[in-house]
Amino acid sequence: MKIIKGGVTKPRGFTASGLCCGIKRSGKPDLALIFSTRPAVAAGVFTKNSIKAAPVVVSKEKLKNNEAQAIVANSGNANCYTGSFGLLYAKRTAEHVAEKLGIAKNNVLVASTGIIGKPLPYQRIKTAIPALVKGLSAGGGTKAARAIMTTDTKPKEIAVTLTLGGKKVTIGAIAKGSGMIAPNMATMLGFITTDAAISKPMLHKALKEAVAVSFNSITVDGCMSTNDMVVVLANGAAGNKTVTKPGKDFKRFTVALRAVCLDLAKKIVLDAEGGTKFIEITVCEAKSTAQARAACFAIANSNLVKTAAFGNNPNWGRIAAAVGSLGLAVDEKQLRIKFGSFAKKHIHICVELNLGAAAATVFTSDLSLEYVRINGKYS
Amino acid sequence: MKIIKGGVTKPRGFTASGLCCGIKRSGKPDLALIFSTRPAVAAGVFTKNSIKAAPVVVSKEKLKNNEAQAIVANSGNANCYTGSFGLLYAKRTAEHVAEKLGIAKNNVLVASTGIIGKPLPYQRIKTAIPALVKGLSAGGGTKAARAIMTTDTKPKEIAVTLTLGGKKVTIGAIAKGSGMIAPNMATMLGFITTDAAISKPMLHKALKEAVAVSFNSITVDGCMSTNDMVVVLANGAAGNKTVTKPGKDFKRFTVALRAVCLDLAKKIVLDAEGGTKFIEITVCEAKSTAQARAACFAIANSNLVKTAAFGNNPNWGRIAAAVGSLGLAVDEKQLRIKFGSFAKKHIHICVELNLGAAAATVFTSDLSLEYVRINGKYS
Repeated sequence: MKIIKGGVTKPRGFTASGLCCGIKRSGKPDLALIFSTRPAVAAGVFTKNSIKAAPVVVSKEKLKNNEAQAIVANSGNANCYTGSFGLLYAKRTAEHVAEKLGIAKNNVLVASTGIIGKPLPYQRIKTAIPALVKGLSAGGGTKAARAIMTTDTKPKEIAVTLTLGGKKVTIGAIAKGSGMIAPNMATMLGFITTDAAISKPMLHKALKEAVAVSFNSITVDGCMSTNDMVVVLANGAAGNKTVTKPGKDFKRFTVALRAVCLDLAKKIVLDAEGGTKFIEITVCEAKSTAQARAACFAIANSNLVKTAAFGNNPNWGRIAAAVGSLGLAVDEKQLRIKFGSFAKKHIHICVELNLGAAAATVFTSDLSLEYVRINGKYS
Repeated sequence: MKIIKGGVTKPRGFTASGLCCGIKRSGKPDLALIFSTRPAVAAGVFTKNSIKAAPVVVSKEKLKNNEAQAIVANSGNANCYTGSFGLLYAKRTAEHVAEKLGIAKNNVLVASTGIIGKPLPYQRIKTAIPALVKGLSAGGGTKAARAIMTTDTKPKEIAVTLTLGGKKVTIGAIAKGSGMIAPNMATMLGFITTDAAISKPMLHKALKEAVAVSFNSITVDGCMSTNDMVVVLANGAAGNKTVTKPGKDFKRFTVALRAVCLDLAKKIVLDAEGGTKFIEITVCEAKSTAQARAACFAIANSNLVKTAAFGNNPNWGRIAAAVGSLGLAVDEKQLRIKFGSFAKKHIHICVELNLGAAAATVFTSDLSLEYVRINGKYS
């Protein structure tokens, strides 16, 4: 596996575009399109929040098809809590893109991110769709990455190449953060493209495995979004023998997909709202992976640990109190807490529970004055 | 029931004192003593954190006796994660106080609050105990309230009178907050005195009922402390017929005790670290009280809701997302969210789940720049 420059348009047969259609008052890009010149196998994972945005409902339904060919995404408006008009607009957006692309309407997935509860300015989107389709190009990946940003300060993209059955395969991806990030299905937008040939069940399995240790292992503020989704399109243009079962090829593909997701997940944490620190928390000697993850998240979501990191204040008592709050069968004699300097940009916290052999790692940011400023004013 | 001025020394037969023994570098009071001239029936509730401070371990053990006569508490040092010396010092503190008071050593409870993981400066406490005992007076309640403060900006006390079986009964109490406040057994220090005559089982029952809707219904930062306890001493000096079973007298007593606890719990939230708002969250039409409480706390502990309150930003989407993160069977059509102006000091948020008939109320503060400043620097 090799990391290369670029993002979603690196795999063969993919183009993308991004522009400003006027949803954001700032005039920044707010509409993105990713297109595969041929139908692709598609899989996705979605937020587990009971309150689901309209595009989440619509795209989940569309993914019951085994294929998709395009993803249209807007930023600046979540199209969530927008009632039957929200659903209608999400569907119409997909239909209009399909019409302009000349493909089946069921093959267009739709995503939104931004403020909850405001009507989607559908007319602006509709008006911009012809230009969006016209703008599709093999160099448009970064434009798409920019157009899905909200409070992100940087576009997030990555591409890797690997070999599957003697053929060169490419995976590309873009993602956006950077608040309302908490574990449970993605918790952000992530779009992955690949020219690998792989069956739907294996693609879905690989995606779930990759997301578990990446997008589902990060937290910024413990707040689960209503709009999160990670979608992968695999168009088979690489010409490898289709991966249809577990084995060497599936493993290689999953390892690469995991690396792609982990890279973007870390970029989200590094670009967390107001974040000044990147905190890696490993809990080991746990009874189960679930227990290790719970302990990681108890530490990662502790405002006291997060403010201690912000203030270069290596307060291990707060780490112990966070672990203890879970009510695990640990006491101060068996718990071991290790960490590097809190004054550094990267902080590694390691906790040994002395209860078993399982481990987990979670990534988070600190809680800074800037986080409060951003989220106090944002609207 | 009538609210009167004062705190723990208002009930007959109680004295208190507070002084600075040198634990706090600031020179502020850090050692408190509450004393009942005769042995009192005692009950307590404690933190559920697995990591328990030494005084929690010691006082829980002592409360297996049915009676107690004094509470000695220090601030500035949690005496937590301090190993066998911490336990020894907690026990010795109680023993030394008992000796100077001339009472049984098992009748002295001990409590600490402050920084975790630093050795308790026991010599300073020991040296100060004679003066602490000498300083006991019927006017010393506020001194004790001041001596248990950490980041609190105000001492917190209350006293009420009620009539039980024709006799005037008084309940007095002090408490301290004001960070690391989260639900699960008290989450702070609270000391309650009363001259009511009541049996140990009924006193414990009344305390548990009162704490559930007061100290266990507040959250500042979702962080559960290692040191929390609420203890009540009932010395029977009022001469009422001892309350030994449910009935009218027990109900009156419980209502008054609940009012006392709720008053102090609200004072803790009002004095929350960096808090600029008091937020009351009611969830109704829930399937069960537990579900209503879970929804209340999901909202109350959402950093996005808390920063929105700080920024006078009435963002109801964040409230919906917080409720939705629990995965309840709610959708946007059935959820109803109401709230008053976010620009006010008191914000009331009401959420109807449309799932049943249960309700709960929780109190919290906002997440401000000052919270981050306090907790980034504190050590």
